[in-house]
Amino acid sequence: MSVTQAKANNIARTIEDICRQEKVSREHILSGVSSGTIVIPFNVNRKMTKPCAIGKGLKTKVNANIGTSPDHISVEEESRKLEASIAAGADAVMDLSTGGNLAEVRKMVLDSCPVPVGTVPIYQAACEAVMKGRRIQEMDGERMLSVIEEQAEEGVDFMTVHCGITKETVKILERNGRRVGVVSRGGSFLVKWIKANGRENPLYENFDRLLEIAKRHNITLSLGDGLRPGGLADANDAPQIAELSVLGELTLRARKAGVQAIIEGPGHMPIHEIAGHVQLAKKLGHDAPLYLLGPLVTDIAAGYDHIVSAIGGAVAASAGVDFLCYVTPAEHLRLPDADDVYQGVIASRIAAHAADIVKNVPGAKEWDEEFSRYRKDRDWKMQEKLSLDPAKFAAERKKLLPEENDVCTMCGKYCAMKDET
Amino acid sequence: MSVTQAKANNIARTIEDICRQEKVSREHILSGVSSGTIVIPFNVNRKMTKPCAIGKGLKTKVNANIGTSPDHISVEEESRKLEASIAAGADAVMDLSTGGNLAEVRKMVLDSCPVPVGTVPIYQAACEAVMKGRRIQEMDGERMLSVIEEQAEEGVDFMTVHCGITKETVKILERNGRRVGVVSRGGSFLVKWIKANGRENPLYENFDRLLEIAKRHNITLSLGDGLRPGGLADANDAPQIAELSVLGELTLRARKAGVQAIIEGPGHMPIHEIAGHVQLAKKLGHDAPLYLLGPLVTDIAAGYDHIVSAIGGAVAASAGVDFLCYVTPAEHLRLPDADDVYQGVIASRIAAHAADIVKNVPGAKEWDEEFSRYRKDRDWKMQEKLSLDPAKFAAERKKLLPEENDVCTMCGKYCAMKDET
Repeated sequence: MSVTQAKANNIARTIEDICRQEKVSREHILSGVSSGTIVIPFNVNRKMTKPCAIGKGLKTKVNANIGTSPDHISVEEESRKLEASIAAGADAVMDLSTGGNLAEVRKMVLDSCPVPVGTVPIYQAACEAVMKGRRIQEMDGERMLSVIEEQAEEGVDFMTVHCGITKETVKILERNGRRVGVVSRGGSFLVKWIKANGRENPLYENFDRLLEIAKRHNITLSLGDGLRPGGLADANDAPQIAELSVLGELTLRARKAGVQAIIEGPGHMPIHEIAGHVQLAKKLGHDAPLYLLGPLVTDIAAGYDHIVSAIGGAVAASAGVDFLCYVTPAEHLRLPDADDVYQGVIASRIAAHAADIVKNVPGAKEWDEEFSRYRKDRDWKMQEKLSLDPAKFAAERKKLLPEENDVCTMCGKYCAMKDET
Repeated sequence: MSVTQAKANNIARTIEDICRQEKVSREHILSGVSSGTIVIPFNVNRKMTKPCAIGKGLKTKVNANIGTSPDHISVEEESRKLEASIAAGADAVMDLSTGGNLAEVRKMVLDSCPVPVGTVPIYQAACEAVMKGRRIQEMDGERMLSVIEEQAEEGVDFMTVHCGITKETVKILERNGRRVGVVSRGGSFLVKWIKANGRENPLYENFDRLLEIAKRHNITLSLGDGLRPGGLADANDAPQIAELSVLGELTLRARKAGVQAIIEGPGHMPIHEIAGHVQLAKKLGHDAPLYLLGPLVTDIAAGYDHIVSAIGGAVAASAGVDFLCYVTPAEHLRLPDADDVYQGVIASRIAAHAADIVKNVPGAKEWDEEFSRYRKDRDWKMQEKLSLDPAKFAAERKKLLPEENDVCTMCGKYCAMKDET
């Protein structure tokens, strides 16, 4: 069997697995991939045991961000965070490391992660510049692209590329001003670079080269929202929408080149602006899968931003968002640890599932119906088995067990479910 | 100064305090109370340091349920749960005790609670019957009313009365069937009673007497949703809506009698049904303040139902709900402890505040704007001070402090906020 044949067999098997998981037809997946409304992030160089598809008519997926920072570097801890992501049920993991030996962490993640792996390659270019004693704005433009090629060869499945930060969108940013400024790390690097050098964003200027690399390795491009709002006050402002519009244009170019693309979204946004924004993003983005960080529906609840984000994520996914990037309880305060990662993934999965019921995704409503039957029957074993997090279910129930085993200590013998009413 | 004069002075001071907290005019409060779109739960016999108003144009309020169960009885623990409720910022507390000496717990709560206190008096009637060796359906109908009078004299500010469980709505329940049945504890007591005795619900039949008691003590009636859905599959079914319609009629009778009334709501409900349901409940309920438990937007996440409920509560309050009853992480599994109570109140407060931004409640958006200014400035002291839970903010940040004190360990020196972009 030739290498090409083996690859073709792999793809066929992956699509079969996905159809089974999603309870959708092969035609649904193939037509979605062909039109660009569904992506399957899977680098040709990657070994992956649990691939997934993201997009129209499919379960809302959840991504967990892990990675070192300059202030906290431990490959062991990142390994624990990766394990926590998978244990909690993440569908994808991004390694956002910016501290220590980035290649070492990335290798660990690519080697051990069963699900698609994403990165933000510009972090590597920026960290290299800083390690050489340069400032961010002195990053080498050519290096921004060669880093992408290197990571593509390593097997990274999807990459955030902030191609929508352009000379033009930076002008719009400057003319309009902002309350909270640029809060995307990669976005801020590129805004600085463009302002300091007076040149166009290399990722935008050389987008055709980027597409060629992506095509060769089957990288899914995650068109980054470098101008996402960092506070409710900046939501849906002119810079954000201008960037989104550029990302829509680039999506069409990616499709033409046979490259899979998804579009990233905010950020901080009040509840009543979310559904309208998702509609707009689907329109400007030509129905590309949308990948949202949050949205956080209030700015004031640091320490609980996984809950804030679950609210926004549920509303956004109900309105059509396909892929949720988790937010952990540590957001805005510090680098998350393994427990934060676990909590963050669970909160996002709750949001994703609640939205899947709205989207009428195959199997979503049925899960709740089956669970509720066991609840009504006070079948605690089956409830545990079917619950979102069986270990948590068991641990919480065990903290205070009832006298009679068929109820719980909330109502004890007065359990409303006990007597048929 | 006469007793009447002292009382009049108290009311005047309470309204002044409320206007200051809510940043609304005296006229707004008075016209809302007079039309029934705003209530101020405050028993004439109660001493209370932190009264509040609930309803149109006001901040969304949060209630915490505490109380013993037959399987776990400790006045000390209930006292800790009360403290946790207040520390977390609950606007009201309900004592739902059904185990041990109910009067003792209630006295402790009424004596120590700075905010409005609510009860479900039928629990007392039911527990008394059971302690006498009777079954629930053998509760004394007259006792259902005398319990209300006793608790009114003790100073309870608002009471859940399941007056919408009637012979007629029980018939509708039987004709339509249900996946999860009746899940309201008080509701299930009354359904059983009506079915066993073939008589009308004493709380419905004697509603005028109930109004007379409420009027005399200034009890706010919380018209209970005994037929609330206990699973997504039962949301917005005929029994629920039939009961809601009865509660609307009773609201008009309460207003006519000069009695304050609010209407309770579900329960379990998928996201896309919530806004429509809230609209309907406002219509059938003649714009009475709505008091919702949850809604829980999925059935399958026991152990995390505070998050599930925060999603539903935020969507519901955004659509006009005035008062959120918290749900704790222990819901569906066991009686909550003090930590669960704290987590539950915080999750509901996040939902309430996120909705207040949508409702354009005075001061809501401004809080986020002020907070975000300090975030942009990386002023950690002021962020801590202004955050929803300052102690949590400080504790989480401290777990991993940055090398340079003006950032956090998420991005360290790469902080996007650090350089003006």
